[in-house]
Amino acid sequence: MAIFNEPFALANKEVAGYKIYGFPYSTNTWRVLAVLHEKGLSYYPITVNLRTGEQKTPSFLSINPFGQVPVLLDGHLKLTESRAISLYIEKVHSSRGTKLLNHKDYKKMGTETMWMYIESFKFDPPATILTLELAIKPMTGLKTDYKVVNETEPQLEKVLDIYEEQLKKSRFLAGNRFTLADLFHLPNIEYLMNTTTKRLFEKRPNVHRWVTKIMARPAWKKACDPNAWYDK
Amino acid sequence: MAIFNEPFALANKEVAGYKIYGFPYSTNTWRVLAVLHEKGLSYYPITVNLRTGEQKTPSFLSINPFGQVPVLLDGHLKLTESRAISLYIEKVHSSRGTKLLNHKDYKKMGTETMWMYIESFKFDPPATILTLELAIKPMTGLKTDYKVVNETEPQLEKVLDIYEEQLKKSRFLAGNRFTLADLFHLPNIEYLMNTTTKRLFEKRPNVHRWVTKIMARPAWKKACDPNAWYDK
Repeated sequence: MAIFNEPFALANKEVAGYKIYGFPYSTNTWRVLAVLHEKGLSYYPITVNLRTGEQKTPSFLSINPFGQVPVLLDGHLKLTESRAISLYIEKVHSSRGTKLLNHKDYKKMGTETMWMYIESFKFDPPATILTLELAIKPMTGLKTDYKVVNETEPQLEKVLDIYEEQLKKSRFLAGNRFTLADLFHLPNIEYLMNTTTKRLFEKRPNVHRWVTKIMARPAWKKACDPNAWYDK
Repeated sequence: MAIFNEPFALANKEVAGYKIYGFPYSTNTWRVLAVLHEKGLSYYPITVNLRTGEQKTPSFLSINPFGQVPVLLDGHLKLTESRAISLYIEKVHSSRGTKLLNHKDYKKMGTETMWMYIESFKFDPPATILTLELAIKPMTGLKTDYKVVNETEPQLEKVLDIYEEQLKKSRFLAGNRFTLADLFHLPNIEYLMNTTTKRLFEKRPNVHRWVTKIMARPAWKKACDPNAWYDK
């Protein structure tokens, strides 16, 4: 077990592979780790303790002024925003590991990009609220606001109705291959499948099939396992 | 002047260039039109009247189940989500008109992608709320909720403080060239510069310089001009 107390010293250390500032229970960190595992890439995790508010300390704000993880360091390049980091890794390592985007067929890539943005603007807003209320708050001793839950679940249902129709037509959201568009959904789904919101996914047969399939990916199991994080 | 009453008949008509379902006062429509003008591409606009709720009619929902504009048609390809459409157009026409992304230098593209996602997840949420409250609601006879405005402006200020620091270092957000990362901000900025929120941009000198610069682009002036829309 290695929980790093001095991440900023470590950031200057020369290591093989990417350095990732993150936290083992952070959805946005999981998103990037899933991509790294799909590509079979090594990485060097640097823990930013979100429980103690380390992400809002001056030393971390000098790394990411938005005070959030993950942050990727690749030599002198520093990237924030988990989806941007994911796209960067996939682009640089397009021919390695799982092919997570179509880089050659622009129409297919257009469809994949559309489903990535549907995740960002349609799925993520209600899913993040429900994850916070039903998973993160109980985990950290805070009280769930069921008024918020009851207002948000119907918004998620509208999105899942559209997903159900799409997933009748194809195995994954952007076609018959697993892509970043599917992967981007995993972090919130992982938490929500351990909450009462689970039933919204389960009562839609094609959504349920899709959720089961993408959650079972070995790369995903490694990405969201807190023990794997500390073992690095 | 041509306001199209039968968009779905027109959608089957063979025309040169892209077909765009949109609305002349829609921020998300403007975003795509700006890209088309930057690339010097012709397009065929199909009006979906958001004022009468045409976007929620069964015939439009069969085109976009989310009930939103813009939608791009390119032959058999149908794309929603303005940022995905923008990326598709830039990718297909990378060597034409304004170069809106670095397609060869992956590190530069990574930085550009990061700033696109900062727009999506940091700037757009407060900016969209303020645009709705201070510009769209008054324009459509609805009452501004100043409690919401007062809660949201400090969120936008935090983002603009970070932009100010970045724009001290470079002419545009992702470096010294105008890219999609800048362009994606224009629709909300266009509305907000005609509201009291304008002062938040103006009191930050580098943000103010950037806003003035990007709003002055000829492609942008065409994109957000409702008259240009009807003249097509």
